[in-house]
Amino acid sequence: MGNRGSKPGTGRSPSATQGQQRNQRGRATATAAVTVPKDTAKAYDALCDRLKEVSVLGGISGLLGWDEMVMMPPGAADSRGAQKSALAGVLYDKKTDPVLGQLLDALKAAPPGALDPYQAAVVRDAGKQFIKDTALPKELAQRIAKLESDAYAAWVKAKTASDFSLFAPFLKEWVEVNKEKARLIDPSLPPYDVLLDDYEKGLTSARLDEVFAQVREGLVPLIAAIKTRGRAIEDKWMDGDYDLDKQAELCKKIALDIGFDTDHGRLDVSVHPFTGGAHPTDVRMTTRFKKHSLLEGITGAIHETGHALYEQGRNLKYDGLPVNAALSMGVHESQSLLWERMVGLGRPFAAYLLPLLKERFPDKFGAASAEQLYEGENKIAQPSLIRVESDEVTYPLHIILRYELERGLMDGSVNVDDIPKLWNERMEAYLGDRPPSDAMGCLQDVHWSAGLFGYFPTYSLGAMYATQIYAAASKAIPDLEAKIQAGDFKPLKAWLNEQIHSLGSLHASGDELMTHVTGGPLDPSVFLAYLTKKYTDLYKL
Amino acid sequence: MGNRGSKPGTGRSPSATQGQQRNQRGRATATAAVTVPKDTAKAYDALCDRLKEVSVLGGISGLLGWDEMVMMPPGAADSRGAQKSALAGVLYDKKTDPVLGQLLDALKAAPPGALDPYQAAVVRDAGKQFIKDTALPKELAQRIAKLESDAYAAWVKAKTASDFSLFAPFLKEWVEVNKEKARLIDPSLPPYDVLLDDYEKGLTSARLDEVFAQVREGLVPLIAAIKTRGRAIEDKWMDGDYDLDKQAELCKKIALDIGFDTDHGRLDVSVHPFTGGAHPTDVRMTTRFKKHSLLEGITGAIHETGHALYEQGRNLKYDGLPVNAALSMGVHESQSLLWERMVGLGRPFAAYLLPLLKERFPDKFGAASAEQLYEGENKIAQPSLIRVESDEVTYPLHIILRYELERGLMDGSVNVDDIPKLWNERMEAYLGDRPPSDAMGCLQDVHWSAGLFGYFPTYSLGAMYATQIYAAASKAIPDLEAKIQAGDFKPLKAWLNEQIHSLGSLHASGDELMTHVTGGPLDPSVFLAYLTKKYTDLYKL
Repeated sequence: MGNRGSKPGTGRSPSATQGQQRNQRGRATATAAVTVPKDTAKAYDALCDRLKEVSVLGGISGLLGWDEMVMMPPGAADSRGAQKSALAGVLYDKKTDPVLGQLLDALKAAPPGALDPYQAAVVRDAGKQFIKDTALPKELAQRIAKLESDAYAAWVKAKTASDFSLFAPFLKEWVEVNKEKARLIDPSLPPYDVLLDDYEKGLTSARLDEVFAQVREGLVPLIAAIKTRGRAIEDKWMDGDYDLDKQAELCKKIALDIGFDTDHGRLDVSVHPFTGGAHPTDVRMTTRFKKHSLLEGITGAIHETGHALYEQGRNLKYDGLPVNAALSMGVHESQSLLWERMVGLGRPFAAYLLPLLKERFPDKFGAASAEQLYEGENKIAQPSLIRVESDEVTYPLHIILRYELERGLMDGSVNVDDIPKLWNERMEAYLGDRPPSDAMGCLQDVHWSAGLFGYFPTYSLGAMYATQIYAAASKAIPDLEAKIQAGDFKPLKAWLNEQIHSLGSLHASGDELMTHVTGGPLDPSVFLAYLTKKYTDLYKL
Repeated sequence: MGNRGSKPGTGRSPSATQGQQRNQRGRATATAAVTVPKDTAKAYDALCDRLKEVSVLGGISGLLGWDEMVMMPPGAADSRGAQKSALAGVLYDKKTDPVLGQLLDALKAAPPGALDPYQAAVVRDAGKQFIKDTALPKELAQRIAKLESDAYAAWVKAKTASDFSLFAPFLKEWVEVNKEKARLIDPSLPPYDVLLDDYEKGLTSARLDEVFAQVREGLVPLIAAIKTRGRAIEDKWMDGDYDLDKQAELCKKIALDIGFDTDHGRLDVSVHPFTGGAHPTDVRMTTRFKKHSLLEGITGAIHETGHALYEQGRNLKYDGLPVNAALSMGVHESQSLLWERMVGLGRPFAAYLLPLLKERFPDKFGAASAEQLYEGENKIAQPSLIRVESDEVTYPLHIILRYELERGLMDGSVNVDDIPKLWNERMEAYLGDRPPSDAMGCLQDVHWSAGLFGYFPTYSLGAMYATQIYAAASKAIPDLEAKIQAGDFKPLKAWLNEQIHSLGSLHASGDELMTHVTGGPLDPSVFLAYLTKKYTDLYKL
């Protein structure tokens, strides 16, 4: 029996490796004096070296997160925490290095035309990020870190007891802390706008007020009409047990058909589906399957594939630079929702999907028609009080409700103590139903316990962007829906790669990107027209 | 159909996370002035903070390596390279920080008794490592990095052409470079000893000369006797196809029976079996199975389990400190070989294994006896010219041959150009057979192309340590072999945990550890007695 050459490391590094490290760095320690080059091109290169290093280390952080969710043994949580913290410390040092600030200052002062549009976008976004990274004094940063854990614990307790008053003091502190943070980052803007920019670059609350008012006015009557005048849709026939292995195999086939690239990514199963990874060439997507929820597994897989295609579609010419990052949370969500809803829940896709279902689940789908599948997929079970269980028609109102409240908290027009009352009143006004408890109402979501004001809107921005993008794609790609029906998703993927994915963060806002792609800024009337047409037809209103 | 909350990051970090990072660090940048505490306890704590940070970041590096071998999609190789390089750069900066050197200088000057034995070992090993990490000037480090790739490419070419002369110039440069490196690290020692210390702490070539001479003199006649007078052993009956899933399931059962802890580790399959991971609580072990090689899969799994138990057995009281690292490559190998050979290839284990084989592979093992299994497992197929295909009797001579040559290269008594001639002569003298080509001879192993002089001996040191440790365990644990036969591996694992694993690098050398565990230093006569007894009996010499 032969010996094997395998040996784990001993914690000592052979000198050859050390040599390689030193060679790769070529500098002694972080304390060495650095001067900012006077030449714009050289300064830009020096900036890019630093930004790319941060991006690469951030990629490692992404891998640690994926591994933690998908692979890590349960007893390694503490050591993983220490690893994430140490790497965050390294990243913090790199991101707040004063030399980075000096390079950015020099480049912001560069003569017009010295930088091409991609380079200008790098300086613009890196400059904004540097201000955010360096704005907070240590005391405030520590207060935020403590509040994150304290408020989470309080939210868990309050939700369990269904008693908002247990959470109220922490939400009050988040309001104060977020106001202070926003003031330090940019005192010239409304505080809520500063927070919003973290998730949806370039968006203002004034713009969002207009957009969401229009959505609200369009949806409230549509929901009421479905509720009062909609026909009954039969979907009970799809209930039942679906073999998990067959679900996984089917969803992998769908992801690959749509265009997920396993040379540059992995598909795994995790408790919560997500798309993460370490790099556009290393995208880790996960799905989840439940025996009783075939459609949830399928739409979840399509949704994550949409996120993954955005990640895999970046332009590696700008690898590691801010201009190559996702433009915003909303734009990211537009990619997942375009595939999930515009494609995956449409009639042509039902025609593509049905034979795959018949093959795997003949007992259930042997006699079904594509129209029956389409109807079952799109049935609105019951306008739900719970956001994460809601359908595409009621979902935006959940978001608008939260937006109105968190925006009010930040501008002082809403008091924390009034949240439960306001929540219940508006839920009744928007969805025609009143939550029976705080747990089912204003305590249902975790986001506020983490101080995330400005995050919720991106869900609905993504849904709206998706309808506009799909409309533009339908014009640009001949016979798009016939291609979808035939399972040929390549033209749509290629168009998205070119129009959206490869552009990364070149544009300064979602509005700018929409103008580039669709000829006009975000336009809620497209979203409303889509929903009205689809559900008027489906429910024969 | 509900929306999902899953969203990949956008490359932007919400400020709350930044706050946490800053909070966890509590310092501005790496350029802040640092003073070395005068108080020994405080200086020691400051040292430990830095060493632990390096250890944690090194753990991340371990995870990147594991992921690359087991999980990473093929198209991510470049981005993974960039990640490893960036992290290596960070580690290099941390490991060569002058403040670390100042802390070590202060602690080396601490009054006797100011540090307990574990603390003293931390300062001893960290001090040695700091010298190694800072010894090489940039030019030499760059030369080494270049030589690593050039020499590897030349070795591949030379091996393919079976022509040593193509590789000779690179080996000459490695000799020069390694001499220079050794001189920079410690000019007071023979250069080979400086290199050896990277892999086998505290060992000298003078000591190794004695040890290996004794082994050589004992083994050459034993091998000749087996070859000329040994009886034929029947093992053809085990040939055949073994279902891979059944092999994997069996090997997992064996690893768990032996004591691998899946709360603090994972078992996966990879192209080359190895044990790695990120932390003693996160040990990643891999195995490999071939349809035609049942025994190779089983012994491989046992071997890696031995490595993994050493990793999982560390004393977390000293987590992240050098004293808690593996003592040496040789000691690591002693743990894998103890389980693989002393346990896994012994008669009691064959009695434990046989029913498991009968259950899974009744066609092959239904009629077999434990003695037949034992004989089949231990048959020496043919003294092999290839190291990695060799058995435990001939293997040490492969190592000794390489040791003699690389030691001769370093002290000037061997010329690079004479290597093929010397190799072939000694192979004939030691194993009674002459390689038909350089590819089957002196070019067979990759190690020299990476400049790894001093690495080979650790394989055989591990085998020798293992026999001594097993002898000590047999005295300390009543009825050890009866317990093994019954599949009760807990007492042996617990004894190793206490005697070896939890001590980490406390001792200054393998000799010191052996003295602690077995009452005396490394003693090749124990190894020789074990082999002579086992094979005299097996081959009825």
